[in-house]
Amino acid sequence: MFESDDISGEKALLEAQKIAFGPVVFQTARLLRDWGVFELLQNNRKGFSVETISNKLGLTLYAAQILCESGFSMGALKLENDIYTLTKIGYFLLNDEMTRVNMDFNHDVNYQGLFFLDEALKTQKPSGLHETFSKEETIYPILSELPPKAKQSWFAFDHFYSDAAFVKLVDIMSQKGIKKLLEPGGNTGKWSIALTKVSPDTTVTILDHQGQIDVAIQNADANGVGERVDGIAIDLLDHSIPFPNGFDGVWMSQFLDCFAPQDIIALLKRSKEALNKDGRVYIVEPFWDRQSHEIGSYCLINTSPYFTALANGTSKMYRASEMKKFANEAGLEVEEEINGLGFGHTLMICKVKG
Amino acid sequence: MFESDDISGEKALLEAQKIAFGPVVFQTARLLRDWGVFELLQNNRKGFSVETISNKLGLTLYAAQILCESGFSMGALKLENDIYTLTKIGYFLLNDEMTRVNMDFNHDVNYQGLFFLDEALKTQKPSGLHETFSKEETIYPILSELPPKAKQSWFAFDHFYSDAAFVKLVDIMSQKGIKKLLEPGGNTGKWSIALTKVSPDTTVTILDHQGQIDVAIQNADANGVGERVDGIAIDLLDHSIPFPNGFDGVWMSQFLDCFAPQDIIALLKRSKEALNKDGRVYIVEPFWDRQSHEIGSYCLINTSPYFTALANGTSKMYRASEMKKFANEAGLEVEEEINGLGFGHTLMICKVKG
Repeated sequence: MFESDDISGEKALLEAQKIAFGPVVFQTARLLRDWGVFELLQNNRKGFSVETISNKLGLTLYAAQILCESGFSMGALKLENDIYTLTKIGYFLLNDEMTRVNMDFNHDVNYQGLFFLDEALKTQKPSGLHETFSKEETIYPILSELPPKAKQSWFAFDHFYSDAAFVKLVDIMSQKGIKKLLEPGGNTGKWSIALTKVSPDTTVTILDHQGQIDVAIQNADANGVGERVDGIAIDLLDHSIPFPNGFDGVWMSQFLDCFAPQDIIALLKRSKEALNKDGRVYIVEPFWDRQSHEIGSYCLINTSPYFTALANGTSKMYRASEMKKFANEAGLEVEEEINGLGFGHTLMICKVKG
Repeated sequence: MFESDDISGEKALLEAQKIAFGPVVFQTARLLRDWGVFELLQNNRKGFSVETISNKLGLTLYAAQILCESGFSMGALKLENDIYTLTKIGYFLLNDEMTRVNMDFNHDVNYQGLFFLDEALKTQKPSGLHETFSKEETIYPILSELPPKAKQSWFAFDHFYSDAAFVKLVDIMSQKGIKKLLEPGGNTGKWSIALTKVSPDTTVTILDHQGQIDVAIQNADANGVGERVDGIAIDLLDHSIPFPNGFDGVWMSQFLDCFAPQDIIALLKRSKEALNKDGRVYIVEPFWDRQSHEIGSYCLINTSPYFTALANGTSKMYRASEMKKFANEAGLEVEEEINGLGFGHTLMICKVKG
């Protein structure tokens, strides 16, 4: 993965410049996409001169030059005899949904806050959040109050990466014969509603802030499963408070990546104590050491600095090997791993150590 | 140059992610460099685990993980059996002076302002400058008032790219037998002092703001060439005011890239009118179509957005082919081009059209 041994010195020096000009090329690529240059050239395969591009898109010649020249240097545009055409890289920047949500997320949510990554790493506080959007301890309580574009890009990113695994996970879990499921961090009730809809014998109990629970139950009512979704208000980070017990399963999907290792271990211990005999803890995460391709690992690894600078200052995207260690320290062992769900998600099923 | 046709779809999609995560990887690379990770691994070729790296550098384990994992994904670190080692890309990020000044310039001067590149391109004003450092029309009058790190990185960038060509240019110009040289934008007198020191028959007249001229003449006095460096205060952008005339040469080194094409043409016309019969206009620029390697072109092209967002909103790094057109429109023709000076600078010698 990320093989870099066999490249020439010249190639390595160019790669170093790509990193050193990363913020510049990011911004020009974004505008080439958003101002229609990529699309124009996709629809006109023979290409256009920069003068024609500027005329057709109503850009100044200067703006078209700045963007197209940078697009050429990044390999998104080809330039031959003063005619620009679209390349494969440009095609993906325009059309690939993952690339689009990554770029929007990194501009609208992360760009300005990442300037303060050093401070965030030093203080273990989301300094980027504090310098840009809010003085709150974490981004989670103020998600709905983010500026419109930041909010839209945050949720688009979140949905893109979680939705793909969703249907498959509902399918798997509906066959487990679970009567009582506990869901710490149940959010808006999306999971509990989807599961109870197809599993008539399943009841889900959400653990979250009261406000979140109210929303979830309201949504469950509207979906006709209100009698099988309930909630208990709890401070998830006060590890002295036990979870309620008597559950066949504890479900945590893209939840543990919001916490530092010591909190993850404590949450897993509390989850373990909530289980019936033969109960299981179900963890869903995209682990960067369980990706079928390095592209997935690249995206996950480089989402971690968002957690540092913007989200909470302490969490990251983990490896499956790390999560196994956390589970072990909590008195659990991994019984089964189902990989490759959606965009590289893993369902990790843990039982109490024998 | 920038060949991108023959790469696979998979490779192109990864390249697109590198662009989409450009700001993230830029920041982690910078901290890997500045917090000693690259240096530690350069001095310990067998490498270290992330725990050892964190201990040896006094970083939290979390900070070391965030940085090293990103460093692995960008190809600057190799990770095998949980041991990190430095790659060629990491070596260049640490040791290559060009890479270092590019990165510092892009962080300390450009990063925050580039967020406003779209507005700058729309308004042809340096919106990034206005949002970060100053409400001035351009960055030039406030260079000495920039925050210390921004100031240091701006001048380090400027010096790195201009100093390399300097000695060679003095050598070439001292052999031209020039008696009277005019230098629009003479700055602190660096060029006029260097040339008059080795050319005892040459006198240089600087055109600039009065403040700049005072500094230049003071410097010339201190260097013992005060009697052959003088200055005339002039508004260089008021093209209705002619330059003084009777000169054997007009010298403009890394000066015209600060202006939009229409101003360049006007400045070249005024320069032409300042010449004696047989006088020449000497233009020194790093042109991105005259680089011996694509790395040079990459750096120059992606310096243009700095001019847009931070410097003046209207200028860029030009191609030699563009400058030739401007010269022609001003009634000049290129007589000789000397390429490959310093870091890819060109001396373009223009005579009045016959």
